[in-house]
Amino acid sequence: MTRTRMEAFSDGVIAILITIMVLELRPPHGTSLADLGPLLPKLLSYLLSFTFLAIYWNNHHHLLHAVDRVNGRVLWANVHLLFWLSLTPFVTAWMGEHHAAPVPVAVYGAVLFLSAVAYYLLVQALLGLHGPKSRLARALGSGRKEKASLAAYAAAIPLAFVERWIAVGIYVAVAIAWWVPDLRIERTLERE
Amino acid sequence: MTRTRMEAFSDGVIAILITIMVLELRPPHGTSLADLGPLLPKLLSYLLSFTFLAIYWNNHHHLLHAVDRVNGRVLWANVHLLFWLSLTPFVTAWMGEHHAAPVPVAVYGAVLFLSAVAYYLLVQALLGLHGPKSRLARALGSGRKEKASLAAYAAAIPLAFVERWIAVGIYVAVAIAWWVPDLRIERTLERE
Amino acid sequence: MTRTRMEAFSDGVIAILITIMVLELRPPHGTSLADLGPLLPKLLSYLLSFTFLAIYWNNHHHLLHAVDRVNGRVLWANVHLLFWLSLTPFVTAWMGEHHAAPVPVAVYGAVLFLSAVAYYLLVQALLGLHGPKSRLARALGSGRKEKASLAAYAAAIPLAFVERWIAVGIYVAVAIAWWVPDLRIERTLERE
Amino acid sequence: MTRTRMEAFSDGVIAILITIMVLELRPPHGTSLADLGPLLPKLLSYLLSFTFLAIYWNNHHHLLHAVDRVNGRVLWANVHLLFWLSLTPFVTAWMGEHHAAPVPVAVYGAVLFLSAVAYYLLVQALLGLHGPKSRLARALGSGRKEKASLAAYAAAIPLAFVERWIAVGIYVAVAIAWWVPDLRIERTLERE
Repeated sequence: MTRTRMEAFSDGVIAILITIMVLELRPPHGTSLADLGPLLPKLLSYLLSFTFLAIYWNNHHHLLHAVDRVNGRVLWANVHLLFWLSLTPFVTAWMGEHHAAPVPVAVYGAVLFLSAVAYYLLVQALLGLHGPKSRLARALGSGRKEKASLAAYAAAIPLAFVERWIAVGIYVAVAIAWWVPDLRIERTLERE
Repeated sequence: MTRTRMEAFSDGVIAILITIMVLELRPPHGTSLADLGPLLPKLLSYLLSFTFLAIYWNNHHHLLHAVDRVNGRVLWANVHLLFWLSLTPFVTAWMGEHHAAPVPVAVYGAVLFLSAVAYYLLVQALLGLHGPKSRLARALGSGRKEKASLAAYAAAIPLAFVERWIAVGIYVAVAIAWWVPDLRIERTLERE
Repeated sequence: MTRTRMEAFSDGVIAILITIMVLELRPPHGTSLADLGPLLPKLLSYLLSFTFLAIYWNNHHHLLHAVDRVNGRVLWANVHLLFWLSLTPFVTAWMGEHHAAPVPVAVYGAVLFLSAVAYYLLVQALLGLHGPKSRLARALGSGRKEKASLAAYAAAIPLAFVERWIAVGIYVAVAIAWWVPDLRIERTLERE
Repeated sequence: MTRTRMEAFSDGVIAILITIMVLELRPPHGTSLADLGPLLPKLLSYLLSFTFLAIYWNNHHHLLHAVDRVNGRVLWANVHLLFWLSLTPFVTAWMGEHHAAPVPVAVYGAVLFLSAVAYYLLVQALLGLHGPKSRLARALGSGRKEKASLAAYAAAIPLAFVERWIAVGIYVAVAIAWWVPDLRIERTLERE
């Protein structure tokens, strides 16, 4: 039961986050197609964050699939992850309003980085509870993709000050790399 | 379990979308009945979008009723559908604020069209997984209603520039045609 | 399954409605206790609507408890109820901002009235499906409380133009009368 | 079933509350790191309230774990708790906007106090239903932590007028004391 409620709560928070971001897309005052132009950076910013939150929902979903039980540490690691994710609408709005100025782009990357760290800590809390020989541990494998994403975010933050589009490009690349759901877990479970 | 969480997440997002649209209905500054007058286009715009989202919720609900399992492709097709639906509050507000000016009416139709395309892709992803002889395939039938809706939206978008009320009339007609829930699936399931 | 999803969707929409109303309570610009004074009508307006939505959630919950199955008509009757409930934040804000001026008080009553009509139609749709000898029909009894509430709202709307506080008093009285959950259903179920 | 829906509704409301607070964090107009400075009090205020709501979610979750059934009184005690929790975004915004001025800090404490009273009343309603020898009663133990928190909030409210940082310090201390989830219930249940 505990796992089910943790899932339902996380799904609820992520569903709300993904949806309230659209409140930032204020309709333009004019009524021509050209009036939509200035909204484009906001829309792309929204699309990127929508994708990241969908990836988190998707991976969180697959992760808990292989989980047998949760404890207090897991619950708090999960809330910690939700906290960083909850800052997504804020940094999305900041980046979208200022045509990707360097500092907002870097701060956006920092929130991505800290969310990824929180996800990593959640995985560690679950591994600590289930042990290295559990179905979960086998399903997760080496965690290479998670580590590569962390490294990419860490690189993107300073690069935002050099050339912001490199940083944005890194975010897009990481999003595409995760687009495919966490097939490792799916496959391991199917084999059993 | 996966299907259940996908349902819960989709229900959550649609419930939030349908509800946050009401935040656009700002109370008037005056306190006479006449002050409600200028809100009428917004209210009707809200009513139309509320109906469309309720139809999607309803059909999505019936669709998943006949589904046995989901995979990564289905999850992403579902998130893709939620993305287009999530733009509904934005286009609803734009159309409602400008008494149905041509461009907002056309863009509203474009979001309806792209949502319908995304729904079609979700159906295809499910059919690809379940096969042409599955209970789902029999339940869905020819998909005539879906294709007719797509054609109607595609026609409404250019017509909005000729006479916007024709386009709005098409949206209303499609909504009424879908008002009755997807009885085909219900009937096929009952017969079994 | 269908009933479960209808419940979950309704719970979701009501939970969101009850919560987004609090977004109307903007913090005052000053920092003294006196600055909270002008917020009092808004807070009381919020409290009244919170109570009404909680009553609907509660009764909806008890109603579905005795339901065995749903069909398309029930699903649409339910969406219709949610539509009227979704206008609650709008009329709450209007009434709260204008210290209960006559028209906002009457319009508030109209939304209460139409929500009650929609609830009545939902009950009828469920009774039509389950038959007059069903557990549901026995549990619901004569529906006197529902009819009395409808009559009270219908009386309050014109009275708002005579003396608005009589109308507000009627709303409060109806809320108190419903405060106790729908014990009739609870008792009938317990006896079985 | 009733307990499940009450849980789902409560989870929904708390998930929405925890998330809409982030809407108060409006992105700054400038694009330098220094522009984030004035947001710091708001961010810390958000972090504190996020933690409190997460604690309530967590404890509510553990509390219902040991519950066998609910009745009308429990449902209303639960809604009463949700009402006070729903005022959290309002007081969080007020405290955050005014760098923790005395009155907002005291009012913040009052909402914490009344939420804690409501939680206590919910526990009493559940104990009244399950009896003093129930699994729930054993799991809850003496309720020392709850009483100590109540006393701490009651002390913090007047202290906010003497030195506001003492009051804020008390809130932070209580949050840390609750950070560890309600292990008493977990342990008692494990022993059985």
